Amino acid sequence: MFLRRAVIAAGGSAVALFAAVSVGRSEDDSDPLSAGWDSNWDSRASLAKQPGVLRYTEDKYEYHRKEDYKNKSNRHIFLIQHANYKTYTSSDKLTAEGYEQADLTGKRLATLAKGPGMAEKRQAIQFKHIIYSPQTTTKETAERISRHLPGVTMFSSDSLNEGPPIQTSQDPDWKPDLNHLETPFRKYIYRPDPEQSEDTYEIMVCHADLIRYIVCKSLQLPLKAWSRMSLYHGSVTKLVVQQDGNVRLKTLGDAGFMPHNLLTKP
Amino acid sequence: MFLRRAVIAAGGSAVALFAAVSVGRSEDDSDPLSAGWDSNWDSRASLAKQPGVLRYTEDKYEYHRKEDYKNKSNRHIFLIQHANYKTYTSSDKLTAEGYEQADLTGKRLATLAKGPGMAEKRQAIQFKHIIYSPQTTTKETAERISRHLPGVTMFSSDSLNEGPPIQTSQDPDWKPDLNHLETPFRKYIYRPDPEQSEDTYEIMVCHADLIRYIVCKSLQLPLKAWSRMSLYHGSVTKLVVQQDGNVRLKTLGDAGFMPHNLLTKP
Repeated sequence: MFLRRAVIAAGGSAVALFAAVSVGRSEDDSDPLSAGWDSNWDSRASLAKQPGVLRYTEDKYEYHRKEDYKNKSNRHIFLIQHANYKTYTSSDKLTAEGYEQADLTGKRLATLAKGPGMAEKRQAIQFKHIIYSPQTTTKETAERISRHLPGVTMFSSDSLNEGPPIQTSQDPDWKPDLNHLETPFRKYIYRPDPEQSEDTYEIMVCHADLIRYIVCKSLQLPLKAWSRMSLYHGSVTKLVVQQDGNVRLKTLGDAGFMPHNLLTKP
Repeated sequence: MFLRRAVIAAGGSAVALFAAVSVGRSEDDSDPLSAGWDSNWDSRASLAKQPGVLRYTEDKYEYHRKEDYKNKSNRHIFLIQHANYKTYTSSDKLTAEGYEQADLTGKRLATLAKGPGMAEKRQAIQFKHIIYSPQTTTKETAERISRHLPGVTMFSSDSLNEGPPIQTSQDPDWKPDLNHLETPFRKYIYRPDPEQSEDTYEIMVCHADLIRYIVCKSLQLPLKAWSRMSLYHGSVTKLVVQQDGNVRLKTLGDAGFMPHNLLTKP
C-alpha cells in the first residue's frame, strides 16, 4: 500500500512537470479505433512515455527506467453491485433474498477464480483483495462474498460513497458534487503500475451510482449516459485496464448466475 | 408483419410532414436526466406528440387518435451474441463448445420466460419471436436456442449482417459503410407501436459488431465507444425500449449462466 500511495502523491507534481511534453488527446489519431480516446485519462500516459518514470521513493523523487515496465499485464476489476436490502429501515441490512444473492455472487467469483474463464487466463487466478464501501448493504454483501473466497484480504474504503453524479431532483439549490465519485475513480481506476508484471484481479463492492460513473468515465462516455444503464442486485460488471491505458468493458450487470426469482433491481 | 412494414414505409414521409412542428433535441431540457437526449431518435416522437398519428393502412394514410396509445408498455429486446465457431473453415459451423454455449443460452432464456426475473414481470412471459442473421454461426445458435423455447416463431433477416461500424484496418481505400448496421437498427429498434398494450419480449441472434452498434446508437453514445466493449459467445445483452422513447441497458454481455470453461470471446 505504501508504494500505491506514494505514486498517487507524486501524480500531481509529475503531471505538472511533464506538461510541456505531455501527449495530445490521442496517442495515435491515425488509428480509427483510438481516435478521440484520451490516452492520458489517468494522468499516467506521459509518465509511461518518458525515458524514465518519476516516482516517489522514501523521501525523494527518482526516475525508474522505462525497462521497469513489464508489458502486457492488465488490471481486471470486478465491480459488484450490492445485494437487495431493506429500504425504509435505519439498518439497511440485506433482505433474505439479498443474502442469497450475495452468496451466489461469491460462488460465481470463486468459480471464475478457478479459471479459465472470465479471467481469460488458462490457469487459476488469485483475487488480490475485496474493497468495499463501509455502508451496511455493501459491507454485508462483501462479507458474504468473502466466505467463498477464503484467504482474500478485505478492506473497507470510506471513499466508496453513494450518490448520483448528476442532478436527479428539481431542488434549485442542488449543486453538482462529483468529488465523492471522482475521488474513488482516481484512487482505484488506473492503468497497471510499471512494476506490475502479471495480471491482477480485484473486487470492489459498491453502489450502482459509482459503478455506472466508473463505466462512463473509464470508457470515456458522456456522464449523462449514467442513467441509461441499470444494474441487478449482486451483479458483476467487469472492466479490464490494460498497461497501455486502454480500457475494455467485458460485461455490465452480469447476473446470469442468479435464478430468475432473485433478479431484483435497486 | 404487414403493419410493421407499413409503419416503416410511412416513417420517412411522416417525418417530412411533421418537420415544421417536430420536437427539439430533448423533450424536457429542464429534467437533467433527459438533458442531451434526442427524444426523436427513432423518428416517432413527433408522431407521438400529435393529436393524431399518421399510419398507412391498406392503400391510404390515416390518423390514429392519441387515445390509441396504450401507455407503459415496453419492448424488451434480448440481443444474443452467436456461440463459438470454427474459424478458418468455409463452413463457419459452431464448435462443440459453441453448441454447448447455445444450449445454455437457450436454457437461460427459457428460465427467464417463466418470470419473474429479467423480464421484470411478476408473471410468465411469452417470447414473441427469434430473429436471426442467416449466416451459419448465428443460424445454428438460434436453432439451438429455439429447442428450449417451443412454440416461439423463428425467422431469419438478411439485414442482420456482420461488419464493423468504423475502420479497423489501415486500408486507404476503406470507406465507412454504416448502412448494413443502420438498416437493422432502424428496422428493429424503435419504441413500441401505439397499439401495443402489453410488454413484448423479442430475441435477436446476431454478431458482436451489430450488438455493440445497437447499444451505442440506442443509448446515444459515441459510436467510437463500440470497440471499448467486448461480448462473450452466447451472451445476453438486454435493452428495454419504453413507449416514451427512453432506452435502458439492463445488461451487457451477460454470460453468468456459463461455466468458466465456456467463457470464450470472438
